[in-house]
Order: sequence, then structure tokens, then C-alpha cells
Amino acid sequence: MQLHLLTFSFPFLATATATADSSLVLAGVLLSLVVIYFASKIGGELSNRVGFPPVLGELVGGVAVGVSILHLLVFPESSADGSSSLVMSFLQATAGLTPEASNAVFFAQSEVITVLAELGVIILLFEIGLESNLKDLMAVGIQASVVAVVGVVAPFTAGTAGLMILFGIPAVPAIFAGAALTATSIGITSKVLSELGRLNSKEGQIILGAAVIDDVLGIIVLAVVASLAKDGAVDVSKVIYLIIAASGFLLGAIVLGNVFSNSFVEIASKLKTRGGLIIPAFIFAFVMSYFASVIQLEAILGSFAAGLVLDETDERVQLQQQVIPIADMLVPIFFVTVGARTDLGVLNPAIPSNREGLIMAAFLIIVAIVGKIVTGAVVFGQSQINRLAIGVGMIPRGEVGLVFLGIGSSTGILSKPLEAAIIMMVILTTFLAPPLLRFVFPQPTIVGEQIILDDAVVDNTPNS
Amino acid sequence: MQLHLLTFSFPFLATATATADSSLVLAGVLLSLVVIYFASKIGGELSNRVGFPPVLGELVGGVAVGVSILHLLVFPESSADGSSSLVMSFLQATAGLTPEASNAVFFAQSEVITVLAELGVIILLFEIGLESNLKDLMAVGIQASVVAVVGVVAPFTAGTAGLMILFGIPAVPAIFAGAALTATSIGITSKVLSELGRLNSKEGQIILGAAVIDDVLGIIVLAVVASLAKDGAVDVSKVIYLIIAASGFLLGAIVLGNVFSNSFVEIASKLKTRGGLIIPAFIFAFVMSYFASVIQLEAILGSFAAGLVLDETDERVQLQQQVIPIADMLVPIFFVTVGARTDLGVLNPAIPSNREGLIMAAFLIIVAIVGKIVTGAVVFGQSQINRLAIGVGMIPRGEVGLVFLGIGSSTGILSKPLEAAIIMMVILTTFLAPPLLRFVFPQPTIVGEQIILDDAVVDNTPNS
Repeated sequence: MQLHLLTFSFPFLATATATADSSLVLAGVLLSLVVIYFASKIGGELSNRVGFPPVLGELVGGVAVGVSILHLLVFPESSADGSSSLVMSFLQATAGLTPEASNAVFFAQSEVITVLAELGVIILLFEIGLESNLKDLMAVGIQASVVAVVGVVAPFTAGTAGLMILFGIPAVPAIFAGAALTATSIGITSKVLSELGRLNSKEGQIILGAAVIDDVLGIIVLAVVASLAKDGAVDVSKVIYLIIAASGFLLGAIVLGNVFSNSFVEIASKLKTRGGLIIPAFIFAFVMSYFASVIQLEAILGSFAAGLVLDETDERVQLQQQVIPIADMLVPIFFVTVGARTDLGVLNPAIPSNREGLIMAAFLIIVAIVGKIVTGAVVFGQSQINRLAIGVGMIPRGEVGLVFLGIGSSTGILSKPLEAAIIMMVILTTFLAPPLLRFVFPQPTIVGEQIILDDAVVDNTPNS
Repeated sequence: MQLHLLTFSFPFLATATATADSSLVLAGVLLSLVVIYFASKIGGELSNRVGFPPVLGELVGGVAVGVSILHLLVFPESSADGSSSLVMSFLQATAGLTPEASNAVFFAQSEVITVLAELGVIILLFEIGLESNLKDLMAVGIQASVVAVVGVVAPFTAGTAGLMILFGIPAVPAIFAGAALTATSIGITSKVLSELGRLNSKEGQIILGAAVIDDVLGIIVLAVVASLAKDGAVDVSKVIYLIIAASGFLLGAIVLGNVFSNSFVEIASKLKTRGGLIIPAFIFAFVMSYFASVIQLEAILGSFAAGLVLDETDERVQLQQQVIPIADMLVPIFFVTVGARTDLGVLNPAIPSNREGLIMAAFLIIVAIVGKIVTGAVVFGQSQINRLAIGVGMIPRGEVGLVFLGIGSSTGILSKPLEAAIIMMVILTTFLAPPLLRFVFPQPTIVGEQIILDDAVVDNTPNS
């Protein structure tokens, strides 16, 4: 029946050009953006008032409007059709959307919001790259690498072994769950660091560097685990390809980037029409994002590399100023949709099938937190450094953890309770990290906080 | 066969969540944006060098990368599937897109680019609204109304009568073609005026006011014609509803807007986190756009009204500065896609079936230009005003003309040659208006031009 509906409604999507249906998709997108902006502002401001980073409020605001509570912003993965979306019901009530066309409009507007959210996190990492300094980042390169490796090995080993020994889970699903524990969400951590004004502190640079390397390691771990789940054996050639491609990308971005940054300055200085700075910068960032996604890294690594390279140019300050309003417009879409996609239903202990998952989740969450906090201890040659902050900065799994879960679900090797336990681990680590980071990075004065809140990208640490 | 393909590929779209397919849609969007930005910058800069408004270059750049020439940026309405899109071929060659999944990715990324373009023109009109002054606009209100009414009646009467008498076209299709002649593209005209620094001149204000009223009149004309084409009779209740809804919207926007602008200032001053000004402004603009589209006006009228209202607040200057980079990012998407969707094939006289259309097109184009230029003559009580400029400013039919055409095509009452003739009229008036406007608004000095080119929203007319 579902297939019949889809076949029936799809021609609307295909011909959604200049006529009625396209304007309904636009109306749906506009309504969703209004919901997202309300959720982000109310959540962000409240979170800020009680002393937490605004991004935590945006995530919680997203949960409030999402699939768990208000159903204003739902996505196809959590409901088969648009009937559970209140935005779609509102369109039917006010904009003349027919029930038959509802699914096509629902899928199309969800796709648009999803891509807008992805553009948001691409712009966020571009901005973070612009704020970061390549030399500072390379100065902590070795320490960041050690932190990243320990942050992958420790939770993976403890998680996999614990699930096999304590819970009797077979090897392959246990390895998958262990792999999901290795991720670090660079988006959430870097946003919180930026909001706390700690991005350019030594701790911030180590966390950021480790999160980037972690992302590369995570992709390799994922490739190993996915081929293990599929064929029961590891596809060595694919692993070698990924290692070469990822290293090549990062090195190439830095080397070619320096060449490009000179031509960028030259090109931008010759453009006389509007957008003469931002458009060449976005061309560069989007090309890099495309390359990163083509070699199966995350697209955001590309825009981060682009920002890092353009940070070396004289146009940096002007570019940063122009990126701020664009980030303000697009980044909240990412964090609110992450919250909106989060189904808190798995946390409900009243549902019997959740209980087995809850016990496993408790174990995974402890491993997830302890396994990353210990990474701070391995930082060497730095006597005055805040080791706890580095460990805490690596905790959030965020969207990276969800990618692991998505691939695990699609192979069908994860049991329902284990799947629920991984979701809970991802939710808890994502939502705990912002307040925890706030507490491990004590803020000296109220004045410092005011600076951050009014213009979050200003860095108020002494060593920048 | 097409239906089979669609049915086959649609499940990919439905499950395009966190896994491979969603990242392919993102990769397609990123590539399309890179193509759009290259086309807009190369076209805009070249156009500017030879003394034309940059927006003409963006339109022509769009034609170059679109369905007419390079096929880099094509949309579902001009090709049944993704096989003619070079971006899709590139994704297949580099990003591991399979031919089976190609159509789903093609439709999804086209939908995203379409909505981004629509958001672009919404932001453009919001910016134009911020640049305009409500009092100035109301001061020319009566003149603008007269210009709008004459600009609807003159081309409609001449076009319809000419097609019936000279070409023997039946009444209903002739009336439809006449109705398509009444439109004015507020997007193109306002962008050119802004680029020429003439938006706040008396002529600019009359053109802008008349284009807004024209849009409202056009919607009513369209409703009359569409019900005529469908039932052979006019649905009077719908026409009355539209007149009441449209007038109510415009009056309500101004009255309620003044109430809102005060609360807006109060709310914005209380927000401490990032985006505290731009997000409330966008919530307002998007809600207004939604209302406008719900009552079957164009969404852009809503964002224009929102910008106009917020122009009255103290935050105007700061808001304008923040909107500039966002407009620079999104507005080119609109103009390049308008160009890319334009199929120049209808202009080829080597194809015999085009010839009848070409003769009718020549007639329609003359009526389209003369019918709007005469409107300048009816401006009263202004001795020093540039009447020719006002007439020329009303010429471009742009996206509004295409909406008329789309609805006409769907009813099936237009013959192929007449349809082609209307397309040619829309293309020619759209592409001719920017250079014509440049010539009827002589620019006093090179210094003035430099100011405009470096920061196009700066107004350099003496009477602002």
C-alpha cells in the first residue's frame, strides 16, 4: 500500500516546477525554518541564561519540536509518511495541500531541510577553520594524534570486550558497538569550544586536531567493521585505499591550499561585483567538501581544511565577518535537526523491551565517557594543561555516532536492545558534553562571558 | 517506462537519511552550487566590465551552464531524467553514483536547488524592502497604482486583440497570452535598480510600487483567465476572495507591521546569543512569505513587506549589513537558475515549427515593450521625472511570466507555436530590461559607478 501511495504521488514531485506543488514544498520549508528558528532561539537563550552553552539549548529545542515531543519537525526515517508531521497537517489546513500530495511534499521538504542542515555544518566547520590557526594546530599535531589514537583504542577495546564478556554478545555485533564508541563529533565539540571562547587555547587546539584525526580513524574503523559484518572478513585493499586517500587529502589540502590561498587573494582583489570575497571562498570550501565526500571522508573535513587555508590570507578578518551572518542562518538548522531526529522513546523504561537495552546502554555510556577522559592523561610535555578538559572534549558522539548506527542497522547484525543501547549512548554523550565542557573550562569573570555571548567567535583566552 | 523507473528509484529517496544516498544528494548540491557560483561570478564580472548590470551576466551565465548550452545545471521540467545532467554524470564518474540511483538523486538535488533559489529571491526582496522606505513608497502610491493599472490594461488589450485579429487565435488562448503580457518581474527590476543605485530615486520607488501592485493585479488576472480556460466562465467568488485577501494582506502587513516592529526591537535587544538580530528578522520574513503564498500571492511579496516594516526600526543598518553576505550567497542561485531553465531552442529559426512562433513572438515582444513603455507617460504631477525609465523598468516578465506560462501549458489550451512565442517574449523582455535600464538611467560619473560596484546597496542618488 505504501508503494502504491508513493507511485501515485511521485509524479507531483517530478513535475514540481513552476506550478502549485513547488510552492507547497517552499511553504513547507518556510514553516519548518520558522519552527527551527523558534526552537533554536528559545532553547539557545534559555541554555545561555542558566550558564550552559547555547548549542545545548538548540539540541534540546530540537528534541522539543521533533519526533519525541511536538512532532512539528519529523523526518522520513522516523515515520513512513507525512501524516505524523504537524507542519504537513498545518499545510493541509491552511495552504490547500491535499492528502494525496502530502507524502511527496513531505519527502521533498525533508530532503531540503536535511541538505540545509548539512550546508549548515559545512559552513560551521568552515568558520571554525577560519578561526583556527594552521601553525598552532600543527604545533600540537603529535599530541593530538596520540590523543586520537588512544581515544579510538581505549573505548573500542573496553566496549567490545565488555559486551562479549559481560553480556554474551557475539563478536561481530560487539565489534560494531565498540566501533561506534570511537567516534568524536567535531561539530558539537568545536561549536561549544567556540561558544566558550576556548577554540584557540592549547586544549582547544588539541581537541580539534584530535577530533579531525579521529574522524579519519573512524572512517577506517567503519570500513573494517562494515566489511567484517558483510563478508565476515576484512577487505584489506579498501582499508589501504582509505588510509592513503585520507592522508593524501589532509596533506594535499595543506600543500595545495597554500598555493591556492595566494591565487585566492589575487582573484578576490580583482572582483568588483557583490560577493567578490564570499563567493570564491565558498567555491573553494564546496569543492574541498566535495573531494572529502568523494573519498568517503566527511564533507565537513573539506570545508574545515578550506577555512584553515584561508585563515592564512589577509582577507581573513573580512571573510570571518561575512561568514558570521551566514553561519547564524544555517548552523542552527543543523543542531535543531540533530535534536529533532533524536527519538527519546528508547529511554522509556516503562516499555519492557527497552530494559535490556537500558542496562547495556549504562555500560556503553560509562565506557564512552571513561574511555575518552583517559585520553587526556596521555598528553605529554605539557605541565599546565587541562587534561580533564581534553578528555571531556572528545566525549560527544553526535552525528558521527549516528552514521555508525545507520550502517550497523542496515546490515541487520545488531539486535534491537543493542541498537537501542547505542542510540542511548550517542544521545547521552552528545547532550552531556556541552554542560560538562562548560564546567571543566572554568570562566574567570563575567566580563569574559559577556564578550563570548555577544560575539561568540571572539577569542578571549590569553594565549591566542 | 518512465513510471517504472520512478517507482524503482523512489525508495532510495525515501530512505535517503544518514546513509550513502543522502551524501550523494549533498555532493550533487555542492557541485551544482560550485557551477552556479562560477557562472554568476564570471557572468556578473564580465557584464560589469562592459557596463551592464551584473545581474544580466548572471542570467547569461545561467544560460551558458543550463539546458541550452553546457547541460551542467538542468532541471526535471526540461528533461525526463538525470541522464542529460553533466553534474549527475560527474557524480557517476567520481562519487560512485549508480545509474539506477541517478534519477532519485537528480530529482532530490533539483528540488533542493529550486528551493535554495526561491529562498534567494525571498532574501533579495527582504533586502530590497530594507533598502526601501515605506513613507517614500506610500508617497508615490497613487502614481504607482496608475502605472500598474495602465501597465496591465495596455499590453493585455493590445496583445489579446492583436492575436485574435492578426493571427486568428481563438479568444481563450489569446486572452491567456494577453494575461502573460501583464506581468512584471519585481525580482529582476529591483535587483537592477539596486545595482544602478537608483532604488530610492523617485523613478525607482514608482517602479517598485507599481511592480508590487502589478503582482497583485497579475494574480487576479491569472485567476480570472485560469477559471475561464477551465470552465469557459469566470469564477466570480474566487476573484472577489483574491481581491479581498490581497488587499487585506498588504494593508495588514503595514498596520500589524508597525506593531510588530516595536516588539521586534524589544525582542532583539533581549537576545544575547549569536544571531539575535537576524533570526527574529528571518522568522518575521518567512512567516510573512508563508502568509503571502497561502493567500496565493507570491511568497516574495511577504518578505518584501517584512523588509519594509523592519526598515522603520533602529536596527535597520545593522540588519542590512548582516543580510548582505546572506544575499550574496543565495541570490545568485535564483538568477543563474532562471537562466539555466531558459531553453534557447525555441529561438532557433532552422527548426520549421519555430517559424510560426517566431512571427507571433515578434508581435508579442513589441506589444510587451511598447505596452509597458507607455505607462511612463501616465505619470502625473511630476515635471522632472524620467518617464521612459519608469516604462522600461516595468518590461521584464521574468519568473512571473513563466508562472503564467506554466499554468497555461497545464490547461492544454495553448498551441505549440503560441507557447513558444510566449517563452520568447518572456526571455527577450527579461534579458533586454537590464541593459535598457542601464541606458535610460544615465550615470553621471565614473566615481558614482565605482561606489555602486563595490557595494551595490549604497544609494548614490541625491534625493534619498
